[in-house]
Amino acid sequence: MIYDAAIVGTGPAGVSAALNLQIHQKKFVWIGSRNLSDKIAKAEKISNYPGLLDVTGEQLMQAYREQIAGMQIPIEEHMVSSIMKMGDHFALMAGNEYYETRTVILATGISIRTTIENETEYLGRGVSYCATCDGALYRGRTIAVVSNNARFEHEVQYLSQLAGTVHFFPQYPKPAVKADNVVLHADKIRSVVGETNVNSVLLSGGESLAVDGVFLLRDSISFQTLLKGLEVADNHIVVDRQMATNIPGVYAAGDCTGRPYQYAKAVGEGNVAAHAVLEYLQLIMK
Amino acid sequence: MIYDAAIVGTGPAGVSAALNLQIHQKKFVWIGSRNLSDKIAKAEKISNYPGLLDVTGEQLMQAYREQIAGMQIPIEEHMVSSIMKMGDHFALMAGNEYYETRTVILATGISIRTTIENETEYLGRGVSYCATCDGALYRGRTIAVVSNNARFEHEVQYLSQLAGTVHFFPQYPKPAVKADNVVLHADKIRSVVGETNVNSVLLSGGESLAVDGVFLLRDSISFQTLLKGLEVADNHIVVDRQMATNIPGVYAAGDCTGRPYQYAKAVGEGNVAAHAVLEYLQLIMK
Repeated sequence: MIYDAAIVGTGPAGVSAALNLQIHQKKFVWIGSRNLSDKIAKAEKISNYPGLLDVTGEQLMQAYREQIAGMQIPIEEHMVSSIMKMGDHFALMAGNEYYETRTVILATGISIRTTIENETEYLGRGVSYCATCDGALYRGRTIAVVSNNARFEHEVQYLSQLAGTVHFFPQYPKPAVKADNVVLHADKIRSVVGETNVNSVLLSGGESLAVDGVFLLRDSISFQTLLKGLEVADNHIVVDRQMATNIPGVYAAGDCTGRPYQYAKAVGEGNVAAHAVLEYLQLIMK
Repeated sequence: MIYDAAIVGTGPAGVSAALNLQIHQKKFVWIGSRNLSDKIAKAEKISNYPGLLDVTGEQLMQAYREQIAGMQIPIEEHMVSSIMKMGDHFALMAGNEYYETRTVILATGISIRTTIENETEYLGRGVSYCATCDGALYRGRTIAVVSNNARFEHEVQYLSQLAGTVHFFPQYPKPAVKADNVVLHADKIRSVVGETNVNSVLLSGGESLAVDGVFLLRDSISFQTLLKGLEVADNHIVVDRQMATNIPGVYAAGDCTGRPYQYAKAVGEGNVAAHAVLEYLQLIMK
């Protein structure tokens, strides 16, 4: 089955897009966190969201969750690791799942800049963004794992049950992974090194560490890693007034398209992106 | 006194812009209807406004009104009839009032197309959009009055107290203006005729009617009549991703910038326009 649309991300832009696609009875898959947005939930007070007077971030999220539940819109709890153009449609890899869709709305929030040298060059040749997808390939072997958020610790734990040795590089305070074969590093990985496949990582201190694979567990990945050929400027996805990217059928909305990083802007862009998708579908279905 | 900004229009785009300028403590004037938007108040059910589940238009307007009242943002109840560029700032005519401002956010909603030939050519030379401003010029004389909304009837009544004869062309059902010197016409005005000044109007039936002035009382006026030189395409104001028009210091947001005509889009654009104004002010104040 090919979906009409896939929405990547569950912040305000994703919520707004989802409401509109649901009202228009499109078959779409919505991928992200069922908790919606951790970042927004932490906002103490929001004063400039028209219609909601002085709400907290948690209240805004709760209002969104009720609205989504009321309209019976499901969220697939995954992280999309790559989007590929397949002729007239797109294939999305998300965790273990694979989705086909005619259009994509990227509502991923701001991108975390790729900080490890050669990361994208070795993607699929030793570098992976998904423990669930690729963990089994490293049974009994030595891997490095980088994570920027404690919420990925269950994935690190999972990898430690498969791999022989896990060199763990947490990018946050007080990591709590416990396993005999996990070596905790305070250093950072500077670059990925290999020939056909990864064979080691170079640490920022200059030390080299032999590994068979590198897992990068992050809240988001760079846009160009996510979708090859996507036009990006200044670390934001380039869009026109209809939220269309340079790739026909791919739209973007919210913080990923640039400043101001504002909830109202995000819901506005999610709405416009959904309407642009409706128009695009109308055209290609003719 | 020169304001930092003027917001023209009190629909969702204007509301969103106003909240943001108020939070940033800018000196701004907000011009439009204190009732906010008649059109929205009539919406029976709104299902795609993120955060407000199945509200009526009236409930949404009420939420906006409470938020504006809570933040103590006043609305000047006028209709802006013209905006002029005055070197490094702008002058706005609104009813009898005159405002000076460094920036303008146009949030006027969709434009009503100019339907009367020569209307803009004779603006200020017999054609007026404002009974209060120009009524006294026609004391004892013969005028034509076109109105597209019953809410202007008090202005027609006012004009009838000044003018010798009022040829009234209501563009709505069941007009209720009562005065001995008001002649009700079922016909329409096709064009304004004159030499230096207006001397007659040509009716769609072909009849010519001698008049000294023509009052056009409408909910909105064409964008280019409002602000000379403003770039308009397909009856919408042309803006970039920062909601900037072709005139530096002038921004636009909401339905006036094009489809989709959606509340979420409007509040998003109002937010972006306000932030663009903040950036612009920062630059010119340096």
